[in-house]
Amino acid sequence: MTRDIRRLSERKRRGEELSAEELRWVVGAYTAGEIDDAAMAAWLMAVCCAGMTGEETWHLTDAMAHSGQVLDLSGIDRPTADKHSTGGVGDKVTLVATPVAAACGACVLKMSGRGLGHTGGTIDKLEAIPGLRTDLSPERLVGQAREVGLVVAAQSRELAPADGRMYALRDATGTVDSRALIASSIMSKKIAGGAEAIVLEVTVGSGAFMRDVEEARALARLMVELGRRAGRTVGAVLTDMNQPLGGAAGNAVEVEEAVTVLRGGGPADVREVSLTIAAWLLVAAGLHSKFDAALAAAAESVDSGAALEVFVAMVEAQGGDASSLERPLLGHQAPEVAEWGGEEAGVVARIDARGVGYAALAAGAGRRRKGDRGDPAAGVRLLRKEGDEVRRGEPVAIVLAASQERLGEALAELDAAISISERPPMPGPLIVETIPPGGSE
Amino acid sequence: MTRDIRRLSERKRRGEELSAEELRWVVGAYTAGEIDDAAMAAWLMAVCCAGMTGEETWHLTDAMAHSGQVLDLSGIDRPTADKHSTGGVGDKVTLVATPVAAACGACVLKMSGRGLGHTGGTIDKLEAIPGLRTDLSPERLVGQAREVGLVVAAQSRELAPADGRMYALRDATGTVDSRALIASSIMSKKIAGGAEAIVLEVTVGSGAFMRDVEEARALARLMVELGRRAGRTVGAVLTDMNQPLGGAAGNAVEVEEAVTVLRGGGPADVREVSLTIAAWLLVAAGLHSKFDAALAAAAESVDSGAALEVFVAMVEAQGGDASSLERPLLGHQAPEVAEWGGEEAGVVARIDARGVGYAALAAGAGRRRKGDRGDPAAGVRLLRKEGDEVRRGEPVAIVLAASQERLGEALAELDAAISISERPPMPGPLIVETIPPGGSE
Repeated sequence: MTRDIRRLSERKRRGEELSAEELRWVVGAYTAGEIDDAAMAAWLMAVCCAGMTGEETWHLTDAMAHSGQVLDLSGIDRPTADKHSTGGVGDKVTLVATPVAAACGACVLKMSGRGLGHTGGTIDKLEAIPGLRTDLSPERLVGQAREVGLVVAAQSRELAPADGRMYALRDATGTVDSRALIASSIMSKKIAGGAEAIVLEVTVGSGAFMRDVEEARALARLMVELGRRAGRTVGAVLTDMNQPLGGAAGNAVEVEEAVTVLRGGGPADVREVSLTIAAWLLVAAGLHSKFDAALAAAAESVDSGAALEVFVAMVEAQGGDASSLERPLLGHQAPEVAEWGGEEAGVVARIDARGVGYAALAAGAGRRRKGDRGDPAAGVRLLRKEGDEVRRGEPVAIVLAASQERLGEALAELDAAISISERPPMPGPLIVETIPPGGSE
Repeated sequence: MTRDIRRLSERKRRGEELSAEELRWVVGAYTAGEIDDAAMAAWLMAVCCAGMTGEETWHLTDAMAHSGQVLDLSGIDRPTADKHSTGGVGDKVTLVATPVAAACGACVLKMSGRGLGHTGGTIDKLEAIPGLRTDLSPERLVGQAREVGLVVAAQSRELAPADGRMYALRDATGTVDSRALIASSIMSKKIAGGAEAIVLEVTVGSGAFMRDVEEARALARLMVELGRRAGRTVGAVLTDMNQPLGGAAGNAVEVEEAVTVLRGGGPADVREVSLTIAAWLLVAAGLHSKFDAALAAAAESVDSGAALEVFVAMVEAQGGDASSLERPLLGHQAPEVAEWGGEEAGVVARIDARGVGYAALAAGAGRRRKGDRGDPAAGVRLLRKEGDEVRRGEPVAIVLAASQERLGEALAELDAAISISERPPMPGPLIVETIPPGGSE
């Protein structure tokens, strides 16, 4: 085997398959600082250009998953479960699906990310709850999972550290766009997270990173295969992300909407996707054998208030002020608020998810550069969905902005994102495709 | 235009053409330290994978050529000329062709490199002459060119500094093997060197970096095109590098052989290639309109001793001890000397140039790692060429080694490189192809 990153880059770019030992060496040597960033960046670009076989992707993922601690959840007596979404605009599914699954008997231990590009991040949203901490040690993660049945925290540095370094380098060097690298990054963290049952939500559409169904399907299949090879029970759901999910994009606005859904109200699409993901989590965890029964149980946990109770318990266990969940915008105030729309009557023909994501970012909800902190109160409220009628004088959206300047920018983004027409659009399905959970063959 | 190296890497890897402004920005920002090594390495790998159009290669080359000083040779009243070789084993053509061209009326100002991989470097060879300096300032380069008519020095840091940084990064990151990057690296230095007439020697065969004639031809055409776009008169000669050129590979041994050729003796192949390159330099410089007349003048300059006189003048101008040229191995002593061959009688079927290069390296002639200095006395003398008969008891080669251990390694390399058989090999032409000098259309 070759222990020279330059030779491995040259071989990779010529389309050669690297061995398990070589891939383990790359991950180990980079994590240990024996391969410098420049040589690693060239190798990553060679992977972006030439791709990787399924075998190579598995060995890379396995090496990354074992580059640090792998959580041991064997002391938890309930079936353990985890989910992941490839991200979107208004995607608060984690905030609803995980307490639902926990309320139905699963133990959910999930590590989440921050906003990336035009998409929001669950950690940014959760941190809009006053006092809530997301930086938990591996011991606290497992302890809270055991006691509360639910923990949602930031990615721990102790888990899959190779991914942390590689991800930052990819972001800085334009080597993000590779199916093998995306899949290994996601799945190495899921494997290190330790849960038995994993459900992957792969978003597809203008507001997702995958715009094309073929591409999303290929990524979903690859990730499912990787998880199964690691001995986990894994399924995937492809969901539509052409218009934002629900009626809120931002931080506090999204928590507010998730809580409304957990109370039995809120937008139908958020409820549908969240209960679907939760139901597959229950099937994957072995708590139900049939999807329909799992879905009914999930709905029941919302209607009975059991799911909200678990969510509140999680917030309190992580130091959050649960009473804030009763207050509009969790008690935050947006300095500048303005309505969008009302000049034109007709039907909402298009609400472009990516455009709304940019509007929320412009309003101040996200980070524009590394280290920025988003404004918890900033975001966009959508009062209409695609296909809804609007009358003259009725606003379509409300912008909550961090400043007057940001308000103007956000309204301009909405001008580009939303269009009103005379004819209703042709809606596509919300759940595009499903790979039912299964283990390795 | 995009001023984000990550976006440019992504676009390049998808096969998009970058604009002149974008390529100028990349070169300028990297040279200024605004793009870090990791992001640049990823960009270089994207170029290796996706290639570059002729337009892109030209804009890259032009930006690199103008990243520092461009020598102004307008004060020199003779036509200025420069040559370049893509390198080989035993390639001492510069040491013969440049004094010949200078003796015939051209002013030759050439910057050379050090050994790379299995190949030797002109600078390492020249430095085997006691006292000779190769690190000359731009002012001294031009001054000596004017006074002596010949200067051969190390690449100046003031010229094409972007290439210096990019070359080191490519070497460290496995991003060497790209026609566009090789051509722009070579031609940016030739353009910055300021000469009007340029002849490129592109080696092809086992001892060259190009093993395939098609590939060598494509590189030659690309470099000729780049030089012509810069307003220079440029030609190229493809030469065979399957067996070493001449009978010496190393440092002092090669200078010794070059001096023998300048005295009218020495191996026929060294004389043929060197006089051919010198003759094309004379045609490119406008000193002769016909190749045959130029070749006759070149031969005459050797036979009259005029070329050797210019070489000696150059050695003295650069502080070298010209009397060393009279002494075997320039007065150096190899600690260990041994013969190779003699056990078998027959015909020399193969002397693999790359293998002999490795043997010279093993003997101590080159650097194994950055910063090493080669041993001036180390190298290989070949007493036979392919097709020559050998009798039992007659050695085929002599190894001059820096130590007993290195002697053993070098002899083992020769075991792999040289084969004796009963039938003579089919020799190919020494001059494989020629692109006669010309300017831009």
